[in-house]
Amino acid sequence: MMTFLSMMVLCFALGWPALARAQGNPWNNPVVSPRVGTGGEVTFSVSAPSASRVELSGQFMDGTCPMRKGTDGVWSVTVKIGRPDIYPYSFRIDGVEVSDPSNPLAFPNERFKASLLEMPDTAALYARHKDVPRGQVRYCSYYSEVLQTDRTMLVYTPPGYDREAGRRYPVLYLVSGTTDTEETWYKVGRVDAILDNLIARGEAEPMLVVMPYGYMPSHGTPMPSSPEAAEMYATFARELTEAVIPYVESEFRTELSRESRAVGGFSRGGGQALFAAFSHPELFAHVASYSAYLTPQVMDRNFGRLMEDPARMDSLYRVKWFGVGRGDFLYADVMRHLDYFREKGISCRTRITDGGHTWMNARAYLAETLRLFFRSPES
Amino acid sequence: MMTFLSMMVLCFALGWPALARAQGNPWNNPVVSPRVGTGGEVTFSVSAPSASRVELSGQFMDGTCPMRKGTDGVWSVTVKIGRPDIYPYSFRIDGVEVSDPSNPLAFPNERFKASLLEMPDTAALYARHKDVPRGQVRYCSYYSEVLQTDRTMLVYTPPGYDREAGRRYPVLYLVSGTTDTEETWYKVGRVDAILDNLIARGEAEPMLVVMPYGYMPSHGTPMPSSPEAAEMYATFARELTEAVIPYVESEFRTELSRESRAVGGFSRGGGQALFAAFSHPELFAHVASYSAYLTPQVMDRNFGRLMEDPARMDSLYRVKWFGVGRGDFLYADVMRHLDYFREKGISCRTRITDGGHTWMNARAYLAETLRLFFRSPES
Repeated sequence: MMTFLSMMVLCFALGWPALARAQGNPWNNPVVSPRVGTGGEVTFSVSAPSASRVELSGQFMDGTCPMRKGTDGVWSVTVKIGRPDIYPYSFRIDGVEVSDPSNPLAFPNERFKASLLEMPDTAALYARHKDVPRGQVRYCSYYSEVLQTDRTMLVYTPPGYDREAGRRYPVLYLVSGTTDTEETWYKVGRVDAILDNLIARGEAEPMLVVMPYGYMPSHGTPMPSSPEAAEMYATFARELTEAVIPYVESEFRTELSRESRAVGGFSRGGGQALFAAFSHPELFAHVASYSAYLTPQVMDRNFGRLMEDPARMDSLYRVKWFGVGRGDFLYADVMRHLDYFREKGISCRTRITDGGHTWMNARAYLAETLRLFFRSPES
Repeated sequence: MMTFLSMMVLCFALGWPALARAQGNPWNNPVVSPRVGTGGEVTFSVSAPSASRVELSGQFMDGTCPMRKGTDGVWSVTVKIGRPDIYPYSFRIDGVEVSDPSNPLAFPNERFKASLLEMPDTAALYARHKDVPRGQVRYCSYYSEVLQTDRTMLVYTPPGYDREAGRRYPVLYLVSGTTDTEETWYKVGRVDAILDNLIARGEAEPMLVVMPYGYMPSHGTPMPSSPEAAEMYATFARELTEAVIPYVESEFRTELSRESRAVGGFSRGGGQALFAAFSHPELFAHVASYSAYLTPQVMDRNFGRLMEDPARMDSLYRVKWFGVGRGDFLYADVMRHLDYFREKGISCRTRITDGGHTWMNARAYLAETLRLFFRSPES
């Protein structure tokens, strides 16, 4: 439920392209989609002359909405979106979910194909500003001895990283969700622009952000509440501590204390982050869970002794942060995790918001926690 | 025409996944596609219960091939591919071209949606080897004063770049084709793996490879033989020399002589590379055109005086290289460019191959030229 959005299907098509990229000019495809109008009307279009049913699905609305076929075989619909943001959306053409053929902004994912609607909003933290110094994002390929396979991780380096040759930086390890890839926090989460802006404003410490690939091949995709999930989390913790962190600390100029390492994640990545942080208090002093949780059973079985010592928990973890939306399908599970902490007398910061299990929320939670990591101890 | 491929539709489905990434395990999509068998049979599958016609299109064959619907609503086809490579392919579902929903390897493009079939071949230059030192690929965002918009470029840095703090490197500027993005040479062209392997074997100089975004917003997508194409090339040359190169030379440790700069590209990018190189002999000493050309009219109008001085041309450009496939739809145009050089008495290296206007060819041409750049003068 996204109560902050007023959604309305309009019967006309107008507006201009939201992107500075190539649009509507290819030799073989004159469709421009999406088009963002001045009043928040967004028109989506796709050419499918032979299809019998085409629908729009997007995180700016509940469910799907039918598109209407024009005489040229192009199906369109205009929706009004009250709040500018970056929204994943897709089309369903005769029941098959596809990305928007006219939109180059793709959602990196192992499974579903979606596109990104970016509504211009210069006030947004993810917006690019000409005069804000920019970091870079590196794609690093490595062979993991833990998983016995090739992997890729992304590493954000802050503005000036190459110039300040003697300086070391704290590191946030940031994991994305089920079926997401190592690119999702960058391409959808816009970590780089958000952090560039926060650093420029003095609201976040200059830091590295490492985005590993969260999928553990030998474990498949267990439900987060299942016992198998904990085994998968444990394998991820090995990959993180025995492959990812050694790579990062040998290739980049990182600070090496536990106070200079944070781990966070969205959805499955949040579970992985919590499990890694509690498994390795010697490595991490900050942990953030965006729309994610561990079950009381997993907590008791794996971290029982630590959880019985709330004073130690609170002194170990300078940031313990949970964010979730009231409309999230994992809301009750996250609340159960927070209840668990409350019963044990363990403190944590929380942010309960509108919205569901979305990247719009994940992005907002990330921005909030980037302001907390590597700063003064949590009070 | 890809005569080196024996293509054959088989009526059974077997084999195993080609990728170490997540496959066939999502909660909502049990389809695994593609599956590569031991004998080069590849099975493609897509769930589309309501579709009335589904076809496979791929650069391993001519035209399209129908897929067959199973009782579970999954459409499949098995083809036999004689030569391992990385092949773009897509499905046409009721006439709409879509990427493979089950395959995370996407082809970055402004317009069409395609996936990548990677057939295992450890002998291939793009194959990853555990013990070969690896470079990194950086995504760099910048504001272009030339184009008055935000742009992204990718920069490959060779193994050891961060460690050898005093060392400067030559730079290849590498441009992709019409509707491709700045990511295409990386994600499809596999520049990083190819160059890591060539450097490890001592067959290429350690170098940076800069992959700019080739689309010029104010010019649209002119046909390469049109007069408008030259105007677009000229704008690209400004972007390259006034925005991209200054960024690269301030952010990276580059050698600054013309002998240490090369420019190359595929398709539109090849035209852009030729135009930039001949416009700026003071900046570039190496140029490579993969499946691309300039018309005699463009050459005469823009570089007439230079072209009348073959001795100067040959001493200026240490590498002038043209590669094209006999099946390429631009083959005759490229031949016309080579005829132009021959008439003027200007030497160049050529590689005429089988195959068409494909990324399989572009990748092979790149590998050949990477061995030539920044080495001894062309004889």
